[in-house]
Amino acid sequence: MSDLPETPLLDRVQTPADLRQLAPDQLRQLADELRAETISAVGTTGGHLGSGLGVVELTTAIHYVFDTPRDRLVWDVGHQCYPHKILTGRRDRIRTLRQGGGLSGFTKRSESEYDPFGAAHSSTSISAALGFAIANKLANRPGKGIAVIGDGAMSAGMAYEAMNNAEQAGNRLVVILNDNDMSIAPPVGGLSAYLSRIVSSRGFLGLREQLKRLAKKLPRPIQQAARKTDEFARGMTMGGTLFEELGFYYVGPIDGHNLDHLIPVLENVRDAEEGPILVHVVTTKGKGYAPAEAAADKYHGVQKFDVITGTQAKAPPGPPQYQNVFGEQLVKEADRDSTICAITAAMPSGTGLDKFAKGHPDRFFDVGIAEQHAVTFAAGLAAQGMRPFCAIYSTFLQRAYDQVVHDVAIQNLPVRFAIDRAGLVGADGATHAGSFDVTYLATLPNFVVMAAADEAELVHMTHTAALHDTGPIAIRYPRGNGTGVALPETAERLEIGKGRLVREGKTVAILSLGTRLEEALKAADQLEAKGLSTTVADLRFAKPLDEAMIRKLLTTHEVAVTVEENAVGGFGAHVLTMASDEGLIDGGLKLRTMRLPDRFQDQDSPAKQYAEAKLDAAAIVDTILSALRHNSSGVEQGARA
Amino acid sequence: MSDLPETPLLDRVQTPADLRQLAPDQLRQLADELRAETISAVGTTGGHLGSGLGVVELTTAIHYVFDTPRDRLVWDVGHQCYPHKILTGRRDRIRTLRQGGGLSGFTKRSESEYDPFGAAHSSTSISAALGFAIANKLANRPGKGIAVIGDGAMSAGMAYEAMNNAEQAGNRLVVILNDNDMSIAPPVGGLSAYLSRIVSSRGFLGLREQLKRLAKKLPRPIQQAARKTDEFARGMTMGGTLFEELGFYYVGPIDGHNLDHLIPVLENVRDAEEGPILVHVVTTKGKGYAPAEAAADKYHGVQKFDVITGTQAKAPPGPPQYQNVFGEQLVKEADRDSTICAITAAMPSGTGLDKFAKGHPDRFFDVGIAEQHAVTFAAGLAAQGMRPFCAIYSTFLQRAYDQVVHDVAIQNLPVRFAIDRAGLVGADGATHAGSFDVTYLATLPNFVVMAAADEAELVHMTHTAALHDTGPIAIRYPRGNGTGVALPETAERLEIGKGRLVREGKTVAILSLGTRLEEALKAADQLEAKGLSTTVADLRFAKPLDEAMIRKLLTTHEVAVTVEENAVGGFGAHVLTMASDEGLIDGGLKLRTMRLPDRFQDQDSPAKQYAEAKLDAAAIVDTILSALRHNSSGVEQGARA
Repeated sequence: MSDLPETPLLDRVQTPADLRQLAPDQLRQLADELRAETISAVGTTGGHLGSGLGVVELTTAIHYVFDTPRDRLVWDVGHQCYPHKILTGRRDRIRTLRQGGGLSGFTKRSESEYDPFGAAHSSTSISAALGFAIANKLANRPGKGIAVIGDGAMSAGMAYEAMNNAEQAGNRLVVILNDNDMSIAPPVGGLSAYLSRIVSSRGFLGLREQLKRLAKKLPRPIQQAARKTDEFARGMTMGGTLFEELGFYYVGPIDGHNLDHLIPVLENVRDAEEGPILVHVVTTKGKGYAPAEAAADKYHGVQKFDVITGTQAKAPPGPPQYQNVFGEQLVKEADRDSTICAITAAMPSGTGLDKFAKGHPDRFFDVGIAEQHAVTFAAGLAAQGMRPFCAIYSTFLQRAYDQVVHDVAIQNLPVRFAIDRAGLVGADGATHAGSFDVTYLATLPNFVVMAAADEAELVHMTHTAALHDTGPIAIRYPRGNGTGVALPETAERLEIGKGRLVREGKTVAILSLGTRLEEALKAADQLEAKGLSTTVADLRFAKPLDEAMIRKLLTTHEVAVTVEENAVGGFGAHVLTMASDEGLIDGGLKLRTMRLPDRFQDQDSPAKQYAEAKLDAAAIVDTILSALRHNSSGVEQGARA
Repeated sequence: MSDLPETPLLDRVQTPADLRQLAPDQLRQLADELRAETISAVGTTGGHLGSGLGVVELTTAIHYVFDTPRDRLVWDVGHQCYPHKILTGRRDRIRTLRQGGGLSGFTKRSESEYDPFGAAHSSTSISAALGFAIANKLANRPGKGIAVIGDGAMSAGMAYEAMNNAEQAGNRLVVILNDNDMSIAPPVGGLSAYLSRIVSSRGFLGLREQLKRLAKKLPRPIQQAARKTDEFARGMTMGGTLFEELGFYYVGPIDGHNLDHLIPVLENVRDAEEGPILVHVVTTKGKGYAPAEAAADKYHGVQKFDVITGTQAKAPPGPPQYQNVFGEQLVKEADRDSTICAITAAMPSGTGLDKFAKGHPDRFFDVGIAEQHAVTFAAGLAAQGMRPFCAIYSTFLQRAYDQVVHDVAIQNLPVRFAIDRAGLVGADGATHAGSFDVTYLATLPNFVVMAAADEAELVHMTHTAALHDTGPIAIRYPRGNGTGVALPETAERLEIGKGRLVREGKTVAILSLGTRLEEALKAADQLEAKGLSTTVADLRFAKPLDEAMIRKLLTTHEVAVTVEENAVGGFGAHVLTMASDEGLIDGGLKLRTMRLPDRFQDQDSPAKQYAEAKLDAAAIVDTILSALRHNSSGVEQGARA
């Protein structure tokens, strides 16, 4: 652990009320201390760093100027909220970030009244802030809604939908556009290019100009009829920014690290009688920490690190990550087949597609944070003869569910879905867990839904998906490292809807889908030690089911259990439904389904999360032993007797 | 049926190739005949009329100018495609629109090569057209992607996401903005106001100006370096339209009924060497048919009607529609409780909220086609103490699935979902069926999921939802008329997770969720006639289940069957999962689940759709008799013996 930084001013600030007792000329020092404390804390815990460092001054200024928590502050995505947590009563727990039982790495309602809205997925903040603003307006009580949203998040459709509805909030809504597109990462899309043009053409207006502009836009005292005149003028000139065209007053761009500009501008915004207002603030990701500023990703997400050198702890050596196994296999498929395309929604490296981007740049598409577009764009490509892979995390694919149903499944188009981060995800917690994809995909007609049990299976499944031209197909696989199995030299084309027997026994059958296979095998060892001969099958397909294999396993073993890393309604439900349809349960069937529990699980180490979910070997053994002991007396005493 | 119109020119046009043989000065007559034929056809079948009439000239001009089907034309939403169908080889079946076995009321890939992409949900067209454009670009083959999208559809997030990604398509992408905001319906949102400002401030530029503008924007022959210069200029001026700011060339506004303007402008757009281009066309919904132009809704969707008078066939008298029962009860709740809010995504009358809008305009929010924003906005309202109802059709709620998961369920916020059009929907077909909501909602922790069996239940459930403050709650109910039961004078608050016994018997138990209750009761009558004493329960809740009732029914009857109007993974799967968890199946349990089939069903009469889905009384009886006959030999012969 690093030495703690000296923070005499920050030590006096428990909440924003304390902050507001400081003189304006003390804020520079406070921000410096807040930055040092943030760096020190993340050095201890790991987590998101670059985004938080970029908003140290903005966080300070917002809490100094606005009346939080009465004014409702919503941080978009939430991974930049560590300085905010330090200033809002959580400094004493800041070194528990992302640990089991500790602070969440995102904003969270249950943590603090200063977190009025939890965020972890992008681009929700304007809608939520508008909800706060309108609720207060209806109740005729004071309180604004303030959304702080990045330029990347602004490219998502729902941010646009919210802006399109913002005008009714008037001066109760403030949107702060945190534009940190100064980073090395290439900007994506028309909006990003547009913001760059604004900044490069206008530069930072001086404070005097900003305030003059605000004063002009925001007449105080109210000038009668000013609003109508102003609207007329706006309408006639057609000038201004895209935001003005959608009904906002636009202020900026402002240097987001200059408190001498931020404070007076935000004060004017706070006191404005008209709105909504969009404040365009330009920040630098990783600001003020040399190793972060020098890094390509600006220390977006880091391991624990040494504060002096910036050297991050190495991840323990291990098998390759699933994402990279997928990415490398897809490059091979693309080498072989010129119709293979790859699509990501702002996650080129997280999805392992960075290699694809280098090898086949013309067939690689990073569409920005725009999952809806990603899926329908892929459907269009498929309808014109391409073989697109949409690589989207399970939790983010929820953003494109209607496009999956309406544009892909109904039309039976062969779009391939590579669904990363399926199942529990450790430190990122409930908002990033991929708990529902088997349920929400396998209920759809035409879909093939596969789950990889290990990285070798992922190779085969990627190849299988590449060759599957008759309809949509999905592969789900987990976050993190593979199991260490040897990777196959040649990828195999799997037969659709066929599982594999991994271990054959006689009494107990474990029907595993996906990543819990290792635990199933451990459970089998423990059961064998108790004299229970155990079969373990890797079903591979949640849809279509390997009905022949399931039928045989259910009817030739004393007890069977399905295991999956997905909530109710998925693989186990499909097996039960098939067994019921066929009357297999009529004669008595000791069948149990193991799945994710019916609650959202907070962040913790993966092992603890699995234990809590009762999806480890011990829980499998327990479930089977309990089923064997069960005498089904409830049923026997029924009317059937 | 009306007399057929005289259509000498149209009779010579089987496909767009025939159309292109006509001289430009014949197109006016052709369009008139096309309009007459469209009116005549819809007079016979009913369906969407106003939108199609608004694009008669545009349809004619596009097929005349562009090389369809090689150029891929995507009609957004698709309900304006009847004239397109007439011109593209389907005139002989145009009077089968929306009938069982007939033409779909939307574009459909399986119908014609001129329908490269099916659409029925809004705002997908730019993404799809971009997919076509890029696929052709990659394959180095000719062919553009052309999207025709309405101003309403342009307000949805995914249209913005697609525009943000459009620049890479260059001149292969053409977006035609069909702006018919001249209607009586009030415009919603900033974009709509913005488009109106453009039109009112610029008026229609003359043809000469339009072409001059195009020539300037689209230099032919290519001037070296023109592109860079132009981009620079665009960047520096910051002027132009919102579309230009996102990377489009903007052309317009153009009178969409003036073929003398449309044809040459589209020819220039077709031949342009730069792009993408957005053509802003202004049209009038219902154009050229006096009764439509005079109607408030411009004959958006109509019954069969008399072409001469415009008089629509009256819907047969019947019980009140579910949507109106909901809407009226919600007004009562709002009268009682000032925190009740209502939110619709562009469906004020379809959701029955029109009365609410009149009675409580300050608490009524039509957010436009923006389901994502609707849900998160509701979450924000709920987080600030309001009691919001989100009224969204089942199929459209798919658009906001991530917001339902991330913003509502994870935060356990009491947002109320009124899910209309749940289950099969008749003439609108597969794209509008609400087949999956029980599955995709009941898998989520914290959610309460109810289904109304009749309109009286809907009253109680609306009241129950209004009072349920501890987390999210959803009510699903079908399209169309209620069953005719008496409406209660006083709404009852239902106990969460409690079903009701509707009929008590001894041998057979039918566990019904939602609207199939009537059929279940009919089935019970038929079973009693065969000597099988039958219990019928209306479970009311898919989540939480009435476990006590289910346990009792399963263990005291010889056979039980669940019935729901939802796909696999829903209510039946939850009942099976519970029965398996508790070991109820261990001793043998004749339990079957009846659900929507694992395929997308085309449009037809509701009765035929239910028969096809095997969800009517006859199918329930068959399933039960078959289960009773089943001797479970497959199981008995297994290892258990």
